[in-house]
Amino acid sequence: MKLPKALAFDVFGTVVDWRSGIAREAAPLLLKLGRSDITPEAFADGWRARYQPAMARVRSGERPFVILDTLHRETLEELLVSLDIDPGAIGDERLRDLTLAWHRLDPWPDAVAGLARLKQRFPIVTLSNGNIALMLDMARRAGLPWDAILGAEVSGHYKPDPEAYLATARALAIQPDELCLVAAHHSDLNAARACGLLAAYVDRPTEYGGRPAPDRSLMQDWEWSVSSLTELADALDA
Amino acid sequence: MKLPKALAFDVFGTVVDWRSGIAREAAPLLLKLGRSDITPEAFADGWRARYQPAMARVRSGERPFVILDTLHRETLEELLVSLDIDPGAIGDERLRDLTLAWHRLDPWPDAVAGLARLKQRFPIVTLSNGNIALMLDMARRAGLPWDAILGAEVSGHYKPDPEAYLATARALAIQPDELCLVAAHHSDLNAARACGLLAAYVDRPTEYGGRPAPDRSLMQDWEWSVSSLTELADALDA
Repeated sequence: MKLPKALAFDVFGTVVDWRSGIAREAAPLLLKLGRSDITPEAFADGWRARYQPAMARVRSGERPFVILDTLHRETLEELLVSLDIDPGAIGDERLRDLTLAWHRLDPWPDAVAGLARLKQRFPIVTLSNGNIALMLDMARRAGLPWDAILGAEVSGHYKPDPEAYLATARALAIQPDELCLVAAHHSDLNAARACGLLAAYVDRPTEYGGRPAPDRSLMQDWEWSVSSLTELADALDA
Repeated sequence: MKLPKALAFDVFGTVVDWRSGIAREAAPLLLKLGRSDITPEAFADGWRARYQPAMARVRSGERPFVILDTLHRETLEELLVSLDIDPGAIGDERLRDLTLAWHRLDPWPDAVAGLARLKQRFPIVTLSNGNIALMLDMARRAGLPWDAILGAEVSGHYKPDPEAYLATARALAIQPDELCLVAAHHSDLNAARACGLLAAYVDRPTEYGGRPAPDRSLMQDWEWSVSSLTELADALDA
Protein backbone atom coordinates (compact mmCIF):
# COMPACT_ATOMS: atom_id res chain seq x y z
CA MET A 1 0.00 0.00 0.00
CA LYS A 2 1.34 3.42 -0.99
CA LEU A 3 1.87 5.56 2.10
CA PRO A 4 0.46 9.10 2.26
CA LYS A 5 2.65 12.19 2.61
CA ALA A 6 0.31 13.73 5.19
CA LEU A 7 -2.70 12.81 7.33
CA ALA A 8 -5.79 15.01 7.61
CA PHE A 9 -8.21 14.24 10.42
CA ASP A 10 -11.90 14.56 10.83
CA VAL A 11 -12.27 15.57 14.47
CA PHE A 12 -15.85 15.37 15.85
CA GLY A 13 -16.46 11.68 16.44
CA THR A 14 -13.09 10.59 15.05
CA VAL A 15 -10.70 12.22 17.53
CA VAL A 16 -13.07 13.50 20.23
CA ASP A 17 -16.30 12.17 21.75
CA TRP A 18 -18.81 14.94 21.07
CA ARG A 19 -21.84 13.15 22.56
CA SER A 20 -20.48 12.64 26.06
CA GLY A 21 -18.91 16.09 26.11
CA ILE A 22 -22.03 17.96 25.06
CA ALA A 23 -24.17 15.87 27.42
CA ARG A 24 -21.83 16.73 30.31
CA GLU A 25 -22.02 20.44 29.52
CA ALA A 26 -25.79 20.49 28.96
CA ALA A 27 -26.70 18.54 32.11
CA PRO A 28 -26.49 21.50 34.56
CA LEU A 29 -28.78 23.61 32.37
CA LEU A 30 -31.40 20.87 32.07
CA LEU A 31 -31.25 20.29 35.83
CA LYS A 32 -31.66 23.99 36.55
CA LEU A 33 -34.64 24.14 34.19
CA GLY A 34 -36.21 21.11 35.87
CA ARG A 35 -36.37 19.27 32.56
CA SER A 36 -35.76 15.72 33.74
CA ASP A 37 -37.78 14.56 30.74
CA ILE A 38 -34.81 15.38 28.48
CA THR A 39 -31.67 13.33 29.00
CA PRO A 40 -28.40 15.19 28.42
CA GLU A 41 -27.55 12.62 25.74
CA ALA A 42 -30.81 13.29 23.90
CA PHE A 43 -29.99 17.00 24.08
CA ALA A 44 -26.58 16.31 22.51
CA ASP A 45 -28.17 14.16 19.79
CA GLY A 46 -30.74 16.84 19.05
CA TRP A 47 -28.08 19.52 18.74
CA ARG A 48 -25.91 17.37 16.50
CA ALA A 49 -28.92 16.48 14.33
CA ARG A 50 -29.16 20.14 13.37
CA TYR A 51 -25.52 20.23 12.24
CA GLN A 52 -25.85 18.89 8.70
CA PRO A 53 -28.97 20.91 7.77
CA ALA A 54 -27.29 24.11 9.03
CA MET A 55 -24.19 23.48 6.92
CA ALA A 56 -26.34 22.51 3.95
CA ARG A 57 -27.64 26.07 3.75
CA VAL A 58 -24.04 27.27 3.40
CA ARG A 59 -23.03 24.53 0.97
CA SER A 60 -26.00 25.28 -1.28
CA GLY A 61 -25.10 28.96 -1.42
CA GLU A 62 -28.35 29.94 0.34
CA ARG A 63 -26.16 31.92 2.76
CA PRO A 64 -22.49 32.96 2.75
CA PHE A 65 -19.89 30.98 4.66
CA VAL A 66 -20.09 31.46 8.42
CA ILE A 67 -17.96 29.61 10.96
CA LEU A 68 -19.24 26.61 12.88
CA ASP A 69 -19.39 28.54 16.18
CA THR A 70 -22.05 30.70 14.55
CA LEU A 71 -24.01 27.69 13.31
CA HIS A 72 -23.73 26.01 16.72
CA ARG A 73 -25.21 29.09 18.40
CA GLU A 74 -28.07 29.25 15.92
CA THR A 75 -28.87 25.53 16.14
CA LEU A 76 -28.69 25.68 19.94
CA GLU A 77 -31.43 28.31 19.95
CA GLU A 78 -33.48 26.27 17.45
CA LEU A 79 -33.11 23.18 19.63
CA LEU A 80 -34.18 25.06 22.75
CA VAL A 81 -37.27 26.43 21.03
CA SER A 82 -38.15 22.94 19.81
CA LEU A 83 -37.99 21.81 23.45
CA ASP A 84 -40.24 24.67 24.59
CA ILE A 85 -37.35 26.45 26.28
CA ASP A 86 -37.10 30.21 25.70
CA PRO A 87 -33.49 31.09 24.73
CA GLY A 88 -34.09 34.67 25.86
CA ALA A 89 -34.81 33.49 29.40
CA ILE A 90 -31.47 31.66 29.54
CA GLY A 91 -29.46 34.74 28.72
CA ASP A 92 -26.75 35.53 26.24
CA GLU A 93 -23.83 34.73 28.50
CA ARG A 94 -25.09 31.22 29.29
CA LEU A 95 -25.92 30.56 25.62
CA ARG A 96 -22.49 31.75 24.56
CA ASP A 97 -20.82 29.50 27.12
CA LEU A 98 -22.88 26.47 26.13
CA THR A 99 -22.02 27.09 22.47
CA LEU A 100 -18.36 26.86 23.48
CA ALA A 101 -19.00 23.38 24.90
CA TRP A 102 -17.86 22.16 21.47
CA HIS A 103 -14.43 23.62 22.30
CA ARG A 104 -14.24 21.45 25.42
CA LEU A 105 -14.75 17.92 24.13
CA ASP A 106 -12.59 15.08 25.42
CA PRO A 107 -10.48 12.91 23.12
CA TRP A 108 -11.18 9.20 22.74
CA PRO A 109 -8.78 7.28 25.01
CA ASP A 110 -6.39 6.32 22.19
CA ALA A 111 -6.34 9.70 20.42
CA VAL A 112 -3.49 11.62 22.07
CA ALA A 113 -1.10 8.66 22.09
CA GLY A 114 -2.03 7.74 18.51
CA LEU A 115 -1.57 11.26 17.19
CA ALA A 116 1.79 11.62 18.95
CA ARG A 117 3.05 8.47 17.21
CA LEU A 118 1.61 9.41 13.82
CA LYS A 119 3.16 12.89 14.07
CA GLN A 120 6.62 11.36 14.30
CA ARG A 121 6.26 10.12 10.74
CA PHE A 122 3.61 12.29 9.05
CA PRO A 123 2.40 15.88 9.21
CA ILE A 124 -0.97 15.71 10.99
CA VAL A 125 -3.56 18.40 10.31
CA THR A 126 -7.24 18.90 11.03
CA LEU A 127 -9.71 18.65 8.18
CA SER A 128 -12.75 19.41 10.26
CA ASN A 129 -15.80 21.58 9.80
CA GLY A 130 -14.91 23.17 13.14
CA ASN A 131 -13.49 26.69 12.97
CA ILE A 132 -9.95 27.66 13.86
CA ALA A 133 -10.64 29.00 17.37
CA LEU A 134 -12.70 25.91 18.18
CA MET A 135 -9.98 23.52 16.99
CA LEU A 136 -7.27 25.53 18.75
CA ASP A 137 -9.08 25.66 22.09
CA MET A 138 -9.88 21.97 21.87
CA ALA A 139 -6.31 21.05 20.97
CA ARG A 140 -4.80 23.03 23.85
CA ARG A 141 -7.27 21.60 26.37
CA ALA A 142 -7.04 18.00 25.16
CA GLY A 143 -3.37 17.94 24.16
CA LEU A 144 -3.91 17.25 20.45
CA PRO A 145 -0.54 17.94 18.78
CA TRP A 146 -1.68 19.19 15.36
CA ASP A 147 0.94 20.49 12.94
CA ALA A 148 -1.68 22.82 11.44
CA ILE A 149 -5.37 23.60 11.71
CA LEU A 150 -6.90 23.41 8.25
CA GLY A 151 -10.41 22.53 7.10
CA ALA A 152 -13.62 24.49 6.65
CA GLU A 153 -12.59 27.95 7.83
CA VAL A 154 -9.29 27.91 5.93
CA SER A 155 -10.87 26.59 2.72
CA GLY A 156 -14.12 28.54 3.07
CA HIS A 157 -16.05 25.34 2.33
CA TYR A 158 -17.78 22.77 4.51
CA LYS A 159 -17.23 19.05 3.96
CA PRO A 160 -18.34 17.17 1.96
CA ASP A 161 -17.83 19.93 -0.63
CA PRO A 162 -14.89 18.78 -2.79
CA GLU A 163 -13.13 22.10 -2.27
CA ALA A 164 -12.74 21.38 1.47
CA TYR A 165 -10.58 18.34 0.64
CA LEU A 166 -8.80 19.76 -2.40
CA ALA A 167 -7.88 23.06 -0.74
CA THR A 168 -6.36 21.14 2.16
CA ALA A 169 -4.08 19.18 -0.18
CA ARG A 170 -3.14 22.41 -1.98
CA ALA A 171 -2.30 24.17 1.31
CA LEU A 172 0.06 21.30 2.09
CA ALA A 173 1.59 21.53 -1.41
CA ILE A 174 0.82 17.88 -2.15
CA GLN A 175 -1.42 16.06 -4.61
CA PRO A 176 -4.84 14.80 -3.43
CA ASP A 177 -3.67 11.17 -3.68
CA GLU A 178 -0.77 11.97 -1.35
CA LEU A 179 -3.17 13.02 1.42
CA CYS A 180 -5.08 10.55 3.58
CA LEU A 181 -8.30 11.50 5.34
CA VAL A 182 -8.73 9.77 8.70
CA ALA A 183 -12.39 9.66 9.70
CA ALA A 184 -14.99 7.63 11.57
CA HIS A 185 -17.61 8.44 8.93
CA HIS A 186 -18.09 6.60 5.66
CA SER A 187 -19.85 9.64 4.17
CA ASP A 188 -16.77 11.81 4.76
CA LEU A 189 -14.42 9.15 3.40
CA ASN A 190 -16.62 8.73 0.33
CA ALA A 191 -16.37 12.42 -0.51
CA ALA A 192 -12.62 12.40 0.11
CA ARG A 193 -12.12 9.36 -2.14
CA ALA A 194 -14.15 11.05 -4.87
CA CYS A 195 -11.55 13.85 -4.74
CA GLY A 196 -8.69 11.35 -5.05
CA LEU A 197 -7.61 11.23 -1.39
CA LEU A 198 -6.60 8.07 0.41
CA ALA A 199 -8.99 6.98 3.16
CA ALA A 200 -8.48 5.54 6.64
CA TYR A 201 -11.57 4.50 8.57
CA VAL A 202 -11.55 4.52 12.37
CA ASP A 203 -14.38 2.60 13.98
CA ARG A 204 -16.04 4.50 16.84
CA PRO A 205 -18.93 2.26 17.84
CA THR A 206 -20.08 4.43 20.73
CA GLU A 207 -20.15 7.75 18.83
CA TYR A 208 -23.95 7.64 18.68
CA GLY A 209 -24.40 5.97 22.06
CA GLY A 210 -24.23 2.52 20.53
CA ARG A 211 -26.86 3.11 17.86
CA PRO A 212 -25.91 2.37 14.23
CA ALA A 213 -24.14 5.16 12.33
CA PRO A 214 -26.47 7.03 9.96
CA ASP A 215 -24.04 6.56 7.05
CA ARG A 216 -23.26 2.86 7.51
CA SER A 217 -24.66 2.07 4.03
CA LEU A 218 -21.80 4.12 2.50
CA MET A 219 -19.10 1.73 3.73
CA GLN A 220 -16.45 0.85 1.15
CA ASP A 221 -13.22 -1.07 1.21
CA TRP A 222 -10.99 1.73 2.51
CA GLU A 223 -7.20 1.79 2.22
CA TRP A 224 -7.00 1.35 5.99
CA SER A 225 -9.61 0.30 8.51
CA VAL A 226 -8.75 0.37 12.20
CA SER A 227 -10.39 0.64 15.59
CA SER A 228 -8.11 3.28 17.13
CA LEU A 229 -5.47 5.85 16.22
CA THR A 230 -2.80 3.73 17.88
CA GLU A 231 -3.84 0.87 15.59
CA LEU A 232 -3.55 3.30 12.67
CA ALA A 233 -0.02 4.13 13.81
CA ASP A 234 0.77 0.40 13.73
CA ALA A 235 -0.74 0.09 10.25
CA LEU A 236 1.30 3.02 8.92
CA ASP A 237 4.55 1.93 10.61
CA ALA A 238 4.56 5.13 12.64
CA MET B 1 0.58 46.06 31.58
CA LYS B 2 -2.46 44.23 30.26
CA LEU B 3 -1.53 40.74 29.12
CA PRO B 4 -2.59 39.49 25.68
CA LYS B 5 -4.89 36.51 25.19
CA ALA B 6 -2.73 35.13 22.37
CA LEU B 7 0.66 35.71 20.74
CA ALA B 8 1.15 35.93 16.98
CA PHE B 9 4.69 35.66 15.67
CA ASP B 10 6.50 37.09 12.73
CA VAL B 11 8.80 34.25 11.70
CA PHE B 12 11.53 35.24 9.18
CA GLY B 13 14.12 37.09 11.24
CA THR B 14 12.14 36.91 14.48
CA VAL B 15 12.04 33.14 15.07
CA VAL B 16 14.43 31.83 12.40
CA ASP B 17 17.68 33.15 10.91
CA TRP B 18 16.92 33.43 7.19
CA ARG B 19 20.26 34.90 6.16
CA SER B 20 22.50 32.09 7.43
CA GLY B 21 20.05 29.45 6.23
CA ILE B 22 19.74 30.76 2.71
CA ALA B 23 23.49 31.35 2.49
CA ARG B 24 24.11 27.74 3.56
CA GLU B 25 21.72 26.42 0.92
CA ALA B 26 23.00 28.71 -1.87
CA ALA B 27 26.69 28.05 -1.27
CA PRO B 28 26.90 24.72 -3.18
CA LEU B 29 25.24 26.26 -6.25
CA LEU B 30 27.61 29.25 -6.30
CA LEU B 31 30.57 26.92 -5.86
CA LYS B 32 29.39 24.71 -8.71
CA LEU B 33 28.94 27.75 -10.94
CA GLY B 34 32.41 29.00 -10.06
CA ARG B 35 31.00 32.31 -8.86
CA SER B 36 33.41 33.05 -6.02
CA ASP B 37 32.70 36.73 -6.66
CA ILE B 38 29.30 36.33 -4.99
CA THR B 39 29.31 35.46 -1.30
CA PRO B 40 26.47 33.19 -0.16
CA GLU B 41 25.42 35.93 2.27
CA ALA B 42 25.20 38.50 -0.52
CA PHE B 43 23.09 36.01 -2.46
CA ALA B 44 20.75 35.69 0.55
CA ASP B 45 20.57 39.48 0.92
CA GLY B 46 19.82 39.89 -2.78
CA TRP B 47 17.01 37.33 -2.65
CA ARG B 48 15.50 38.89 0.46
CA ALA B 49 15.73 42.37 -1.09
CA ARG B 50 13.26 41.22 -3.75
CA TYR B 51 10.75 40.08 -1.12
CA GLN B 52 8.97 43.37 -0.38
CA PRO B 53 8.68 44.51 -4.01
CA ALA B 54 7.21 41.12 -4.98
CA MET B 55 4.58 41.30 -2.24
CA ALA B 56 3.88 44.94 -3.08
CA ARG B 57 2.50 43.86 -6.46
CA VAL B 58 0.02 41.61 -4.64
CA ARG B 59 -0.82 44.20 -1.98
CA SER B 60 -1.52 46.84 -4.61
CA GLY B 61 -3.91 44.55 -6.43
CA GLU B 62 -1.66 44.50 -9.52
CA ARG B 63 -1.87 40.69 -9.34
CA PRO B 64 -4.06 38.28 -7.36
CA PHE B 65 -2.81 36.68 -4.14
CA VAL B 66 -0.21 33.98 -4.69
CA ILE B 67 1.63 32.15 -1.93
CA LEU B 68 5.15 33.07 -0.87
CA ASP B 69 6.65 29.89 -2.36
CA THR B 70 5.55 31.22 -5.74
CA LEU B 71 7.05 34.65 -5.10
CA HIS B 72 10.28 33.06 -3.84
CA ARG B 73 10.61 31.07 -7.05
CA GLU B 74 10.01 34.14 -9.21
CA THR B 75 12.40 36.33 -7.24
CA LEU B 76 15.04 33.59 -7.32
CA GLU B 77 14.94 33.60 -11.10
CA GLU B 78 15.06 37.41 -11.15
CA LEU B 79 18.07 37.37 -8.85
CA LEU B 80 19.87 34.81 -10.97
CA VAL B 81 19.30 36.83 -14.12
CA SER B 82 20.60 39.94 -12.37
CA LEU B 83 23.76 37.99 -11.57
CA ASP B 84 24.14 36.85 -15.19
CA ILE B 85 23.17 33.29 -14.32
CA ASP B 86 20.72 31.57 -16.68
CA PRO B 87 17.94 29.95 -14.60
CA GLY B 88 17.20 27.60 -17.50
CA ALA B 89 20.70 26.17 -17.32
CA ILE B 90 20.27 25.35 -13.64
CA GLY B 91 17.20 23.24 -14.21
CA ASP B 92 13.75 23.15 -12.73
CA GLU B 93 14.48 20.53 -10.10
CA ARG B 94 17.42 22.49 -8.65
CA LEU B 95 15.46 25.75 -8.73
CA ARG B 96 12.53 24.09 -7.00
CA ASP B 97 14.78 22.68 -4.30
CA LEU B 98 16.55 25.99 -3.73
CA THR B 99 13.17 27.72 -3.44
CA LEU B 100 12.39 25.30 -0.64
CA ALA B 101 15.49 26.48 1.23
CA TRP B 102 13.09 28.89 2.99
CA HIS B 103 11.40 25.80 4.49
CA ARG B 104 14.71 24.71 6.02
CA LEU B 105 15.80 27.70 8.08
CA ASP B 106 17.21 27.23 11.56
CA PRO B 107 15.69 28.86 14.64
CA TRP B 108 17.61 31.43 16.64
CA PRO B 109 19.17 29.65 19.65
CA ASP B 110 16.51 30.87 22.13
CA ALA B 111 13.48 30.28 19.91
CA VAL B 112 12.43 26.70 20.65
CA ALA B 113 12.86 27.02 24.41
CA GLY B 114 11.13 30.41 24.44
CA LEU B 115 8.16 29.22 22.39
CA ALA B 116 7.74 26.13 24.58
CA ARG B 117 7.50 28.33 27.68
CA LEU B 118 5.20 30.88 26.07
CA LYS B 119 2.92 28.08 24.82
CA GLN B 120 2.30 26.95 28.39
CA ARG B 121 0.49 30.22 29.04
CA PHE B 122 -0.64 31.58 25.67
CA PRO B 123 -1.83 30.22 22.34
CA ILE B 124 1.07 30.80 19.94
CA VAL B 125 0.39 31.16 16.23
CA THR B 126 2.32 32.28 13.19
CA LEU B 127 1.47 35.61 11.63
CA SER B 128 3.99 35.34 8.82
CA ASN B 129 3.90 36.07 5.13
CA GLY B 130 5.13 32.50 4.64
CA ASN B 131 2.58 30.06 3.27
CA ILE B 132 1.13 27.12 5.18
CA ALA B 133 3.34 24.38 3.70
CA LEU B 134 6.43 26.51 4.27
CA MET B 135 5.55 27.19 7.91
CA LEU B 136 4.60 23.56 8.50
CA ASP B 137 7.80 22.12 7.01
CA MET B 138 9.88 24.64 8.94
CA ALA B 139 8.08 23.91 12.20
CA ARG B 140 8.49 20.14 11.89
CA ARG B 141 12.19 20.44 11.00
CA ALA B 142 13.03 23.04 13.64
CA GLY B 143 10.67 21.88 16.40
CA LEU B 144 8.56 25.05 16.55
CA PRO B 145 5.45 24.10 18.58
CA TRP B 146 2.82 26.35 16.97
CA ASP B 147 -0.80 25.98 18.04
CA ALA B 148 -1.90 27.11 14.58
CA ILE B 149 -0.42 28.39 11.35
CA LEU B 150 -2.17 31.63 10.43
CA GLY B 151 -1.00 34.67 8.49
CA ALA B 152 -0.87 35.58 4.82
CA GLU B 153 -2.22 32.42 3.19
CA VAL B 154 -5.09 32.06 5.67
CA SER B 155 -6.05 35.74 5.49
CA GLY B 156 -5.34 36.12 1.78
CA HIS B 157 -3.36 39.30 2.55
CA TYR B 158 0.33 40.05 2.99
CA LYS B 159 1.57 42.10 5.92
CA PRO B 160 1.56 45.03 6.42
CA ASP B 161 -1.98 45.07 4.99
CA PRO B 162 -4.29 45.65 7.97
CA GLU B 163 -6.39 42.65 7.00
CA ALA B 164 -3.48 40.29 7.69
CA TYR B 165 -3.49 41.36 11.36
CA LEU B 166 -7.24 41.77 11.76
CA ALA B 167 -8.14 38.44 10.16
CA THR B 168 -5.72 36.70 12.51
CA ALA B 169 -7.47 38.15 15.56
CA ARG B 170 -10.85 37.20 14.09
CA ALA B 171 -9.73 33.61 13.45
CA LEU B 172 -8.75 33.40 17.11
CA ALA B 173 -12.13 34.88 18.15
CA ILE B 174 -10.44 37.68 20.07
CA GLN B 175 -10.30 41.45 19.72
CA PRO B 176 -7.27 43.06 18.06
CA ASP B 177 -6.13 44.54 21.37
CA GLU B 178 -6.13 41.06 22.92
CA LEU B 179 -3.56 39.85 20.38
CA CYS B 180 0.15 40.65 20.61
CA LEU B 181 2.41 40.61 17.58
CA VAL B 182 5.93 39.43 18.36
CA ALA B 183 8.38 40.68 15.74
CA ALA B 184 11.95 41.80 15.17
CA HIS B 185 10.79 44.50 12.75
CA HIS B 186 9.55 47.95 13.72
CA SER B 187 7.68 48.25 10.40
CA ASP B 188 5.64 45.14 11.16
CA LEU B 189 4.93 46.27 14.72
CA ASN B 190 3.89 49.70 13.47
CA ALA B 191 1.29 48.20 11.17
CA ALA B 192 0.06 45.88 13.92
CA ARG B 193 -0.27 48.76 16.39
CA ALA B 194 -2.22 50.77 13.83
CA CYS B 195 -4.72 47.86 13.83
CA GLY B 196 -4.96 47.95 17.62
CA LEU B 197 -2.70 44.98 18.41
CA LEU B 198 -0.23 44.90 21.26
CA ALA B 199 3.42 44.82 20.20
CA ALA B 200 6.47 42.94 21.46
CA TYR B 201 9.81 43.76 19.88
CA VAL B 202 12.58 41.14 19.80
CA ASP B 203 16.00 42.50 18.98
CA ARG B 204 17.87 40.39 16.42
CA PRO B 205 21.06 42.37 15.82
CA THR B 206 22.58 39.83 13.41
CA GLU B 207 19.54 39.43 11.16
CA TYR B 208 21.20 41.53 8.45
CA GLY B 209 24.72 40.34 9.20
CA GLY B 210 25.28 43.12 11.69
CA ARG B 211 24.20 45.97 9.41
CA PRO B 212 21.50 48.32 10.69
CA ALA B 213 17.89 47.26 10.14
CA PRO B 214 16.27 49.07 7.22
CA ASP B 215 13.25 50.05 9.37
CA ARG B 216 15.12 51.31 12.46
CA SER B 217 13.62 54.79 12.04
CA LEU B 218 10.17 53.32 12.77
CA MET B 219 11.06 52.34 16.34
CA GLN B 220 8.44 53.23 18.95
CA ASP B 221 7.98 52.55 22.63
CA TRP B 222 6.52 49.05 22.33
CA GLU B 223 4.57 47.27 25.05
CA TRP B 224 7.46 44.83 25.43
CA SER B 225 11.02 45.01 24.17
CA VAL B 226 13.30 42.02 24.66
CA SER B 227 16.38 40.41 23.19
CA SER B 228 15.14 36.81 23.04
CA LEU B 229 11.98 34.72 23.24
CA THR B 230 13.05 33.34 26.60
CA GLU B 231 13.30 36.93 27.84
CA LEU B 232 9.80 37.50 26.46
CA ALA B 233 8.61 34.48 28.46
CA ASP B 234 10.09 36.11 31.58
CA ALA B 235 8.40 39.40 30.77
CA LEU B 236 5.01 37.73 30.29
CA ASP B 237 5.32 35.50 33.37
CA ALA B 238 5.19 32.42 31.16
